[in-house]
Amino acid sequence: MRLVVVGGVAAGMSAASRARRADPGLEIVVLEKGERISYGACGLPYLIEGQVKSVSQLEAQPREFFERHRDIRVRTGAEVVAVRHSAREVVLKSGERVHYDKLVWAAGARPAERIAGGKVFTLHTDADGEALKQFILDRRPRTAAIVGGGYIGLEMATALRAQGMRVTLFNARTDLLNREDAWLTDLVKRKLEECGVEVLLNQPVSDPSTLPFDLILAATGLKPNIEAIAEAGAEVGRTGALRVSDRQETSLGGVWAAGDCCESRHLVSGVNVWIPLGTTANKTGRVAGANAAGKLERFEGIVGTAIVRAAGLSIATTGLSAAQARREGLRPVSVEITDLNRPGYFWPRRVWIQLVADSMNGRLLGGAVVGEEDASGRINVLAAALHARMKVSALEQLDLAYAPPYATVTDPLLTAARQLSKLLD
Amino acid sequence: MRLVVVGGVAAGMSAASRARRADPGLEIVVLEKGERISYGACGLPYLIEGQVKSVSQLEAQPREFFERHRDIRVRTGAEVVAVRHSAREVVLKSGERVHYDKLVWAAGARPAERIAGGKVFTLHTDADGEALKQFILDRRPRTAAIVGGGYIGLEMATALRAQGMRVTLFNARTDLLNREDAWLTDLVKRKLEECGVEVLLNQPVSDPSTLPFDLILAATGLKPNIEAIAEAGAEVGRTGALRVSDRQETSLGGVWAAGDCCESRHLVSGVNVWIPLGTTANKTGRVAGANAAGKLERFEGIVGTAIVRAAGLSIATTGLSAAQARREGLRPVSVEITDLNRPGYFWPRRVWIQLVADSMNGRLLGGAVVGEEDASGRINVLAAALHARMKVSALEQLDLAYAPPYATVTDPLLTAARQLSKLLD
Repeated sequence: MRLVVVGGVAAGMSAASRARRADPGLEIVVLEKGERISYGACGLPYLIEGQVKSVSQLEAQPREFFERHRDIRVRTGAEVVAVRHSAREVVLKSGERVHYDKLVWAAGARPAERIAGGKVFTLHTDADGEALKQFILDRRPRTAAIVGGGYIGLEMATALRAQGMRVTLFNARTDLLNREDAWLTDLVKRKLEECGVEVLLNQPVSDPSTLPFDLILAATGLKPNIEAIAEAGAEVGRTGALRVSDRQETSLGGVWAAGDCCESRHLVSGVNVWIPLGTTANKTGRVAGANAAGKLERFEGIVGTAIVRAAGLSIATTGLSAAQARREGLRPVSVEITDLNRPGYFWPRRVWIQLVADSMNGRLLGGAVVGEEDASGRINVLAAALHARMKVSALEQLDLAYAPPYATVTDPLLTAARQLSKLLD
Repeated sequence: MRLVVVGGVAAGMSAASRARRADPGLEIVVLEKGERISYGACGLPYLIEGQVKSVSQLEAQPREFFERHRDIRVRTGAEVVAVRHSAREVVLKSGERVHYDKLVWAAGARPAERIAGGKVFTLHTDADGEALKQFILDRRPRTAAIVGGGYIGLEMATALRAQGMRVTLFNARTDLLNREDAWLTDLVKRKLEECGVEVLLNQPVSDPSTLPFDLILAATGLKPNIEAIAEAGAEVGRTGALRVSDRQETSLGGVWAAGDCCESRHLVSGVNVWIPLGTTANKTGRVAGANAAGKLERFEGIVGTAIVRAAGLSIATTGLSAAQARREGLRPVSVEITDLNRPGYFWPRRVWIQLVADSMNGRLLGGAVVGEEDASGRINVLAAALHARMKVSALEQLDLAYAPPYATVTDPLLTAARQLSKLLD
C-alpha cells in the first residue's frame, strides 16, 4: 500500500510523518517540486532582514532525517503536472508516472502574480529568498517598492528599511492587512511612516516592473496550487481552494488534501474560507496524514489568528473585523482602547486592543491586539475565547495572570471587554 | 443613603468607584486603617529589588482623585474594630461610631504570623515595605533568611539576592508555590540554587527571630481580616474566609464583601476556595460595589491563575495540579514537556509546560507554564480554556498565532496538548 504526498513543505511533511506513526507498514513517498523540504517559509523575511543567515537555518529537519528515521522516501525536483485518478497515478513534469493507492495533496500555493525577473521579486519559496538576498548583496539597491499591504508586504517593508533602503509601499486596497478596518490601518500606517516607509493606499500597480525603484517586491497575495487535482475531479470551493471535509478528504475517494491549497471552516462565521498559514498547514497535514493511514481524526477549523512584526509593532488579529462580520450578515459592535501593558513603575509599553461582538447575542466575534511589545499572548486568549464561542460577559470575567513584570492588575483585555460589555447591555 | 466601605486598597476602592458610577446620589465613605489607599501591594517586592523607588509610585490614584473626581470620602487611620449590624454602625478603634445603610467589607488579609520587630519583617503593607527598605539601607544586612516558599517568598528571595545578600529560603512544606507538584518544585528549586539561593524544604521554623541571619522575612501566608464582621454574624466558609454569594453578598442583609477577606468559587473544582490575589480583589470589588448601589452583577469565580517572577523565570500556574485534582476526588492524568518558545534561528528561550486533565472525560483541569521569558500569554490561554471547560482535544486544535519573532509554528501549548491527548485516547 503506497501513500503519495504531493508537496514537501509544511503540510506535506506533517502528513507523511503522521501517516508513518499511524501505520508503520505503509510505503510513503513525498514528491516536492522544489529542491528543499520542510523549511519554514515564514522565516524568509528574516533572511532578508538579517537575523537568518541562510535558508538552511529555516529547515525544520533535513531530508535524511525523514528518510532514515521515518522511512519516508523524499523526491525533490519532482513536480506533479497531472493526476490520473482512475489509474491511481500522478504524472511528473518529466513524464514519469508514479502510482499511488492513497494520495495527500499538499501542493501549497504560489504568488498570484508570477512576475519575478530583473529587479522584480516575489518572496514565497526558498529560491525566492535566496535570489532576493543575492540581488541585494550584488546590486546594493537604494530604493525599494513593495506592492501589497498584507503580512509579507509589511514584514518586508520593515526588513528592507532595516537594510537601509528608502521604501515605498503601494497597496491597491484602502486598508492594510485585508481587514477593512480603518482603525488598524491608520495605526499601522502611522507607525510605518514613523519608520520612514512611505505608504500609498488605494494605489493599484498594473505592472510592477515599470516602477522607478531599484528593487521591487510583489506581495499581492497567493493562489492555491490545485489545477492538476481539480482537473482530476476534486471539488473546488467558492474561495478557489480545494473543498475538504473535516477529515481533510477531497471529493475524490482516497485523496486527502492539506495546507495552503485547501479551504478551512471558519469557526466564527461557519463558512469556508481560504487563509493560507503555516499553523493551519501543520494541523491539517497531521489530520490528512492520519486519516490517509487509516485513522479517523478531525480538523475542526480555524478562527483566522495571525500575527506579524512590522514597524516596531506586534500586530495580531483573530476572528472577524466589524466589516467582515457585517458582510457575513451579522450586526457587530466594537470598541478600540489604548492602554499600558504593565504598571507605570515597571517600564510600561503601549498596547491597542479592538474587540468585536455580535450585538444580537453578546458573543465575541473577533479582535485585534497591537503592541509595542509582544501581542501574541493576548491575541491567543481571544483565539481561545472564539473557539469556545465565549460571550463578552464571560471574557471580562477571565482570571488572567497578574504580577507587575507582566501585566496590569486589570489586564487591557479585560478593560476592553468591560467597555464592550457596556455597549451590549 | 450611606455606603460605608471598610478597606481602601484594591477591593475597597474598586467597590467605592463602581458604586459611585452606579449611583451618583449615594453617600460613600471609605474607612482605611492604614495611611495610604489604592496602592498596588504586589509591587512591594520590586520596591526592595530596586525597580520601584518609593511606595508612592505604587499608588494607582491619589486620595484627592477619589475625593474630587468621584465624590468618595476617604478616611485613613480609621480601623474598624467592631460591627453593630443591628444598629447599622461600625466602631472605630478610637471608639467613634460610623453609621451605614449599606456596607462593603473589604478589609483584606494580614500575615498569618505577625512577628515583625527587630530584624524580622513581613511584607504585606506599604508600611512593611518602607520599614524593610529602610532596614536594608541602614543596616546593610549581608545574610537573609526567607521563611515561606509561596509567591512572596520566591519574589523576595530574588529581590534580596539582587541586593547582594546571601539568601536562604526555609519552607515548612516539601513543595514550592503550594502546588504539591514535584516537577515544578524541582525546576524552581534548581533555578533558585543557580541564582545562589539556598533552598531548604521540609524545614519548619518555629521562631524566625532565632535564625542566625542579619535579616529575616516571614512570608508564611495570610489570614483574612474577618473577625469584626464574623462576630456580627457574617457566615465564614470552611476556608476561614467570608462566604459570599455570586453577588458578593454576605449572610448579613445589606452587607457585601470583596477581596482578600472572601472566598471565591473555583470554576474547575466547583468548591469555594480562598486564594487572595489583587486580580480577584479588583473584580469582586467592582461587583460588590455595583450591587451595593442597586445593580445586579455577578462574579462567576476564579480558576486560580497566578504568575511570579523569580530566579530568572516566569512561573505561572492555573487550575488544579494533579495532586490538587486527586484531592477533589478526580482522576487526573498529566504531562510535562520542555520546548523552545521560538524557532531555532530566532534566539529561542526555554519553556516548560505541564497540563493536567480529567481522565474520565478529557477535560482540562489545570496547567503550569514556566519560561525563561514571559509565561503570561500561555497561562492565560489555559485560563481561558478552563473558564470554557475545554477538553484537551479542543485545546490541541486552537488556532494560535505564529510568526518567528513570537512562537514556533506548533506552539508548545499545542505540543503539550497533543501529548496529553495520547494519554486520554
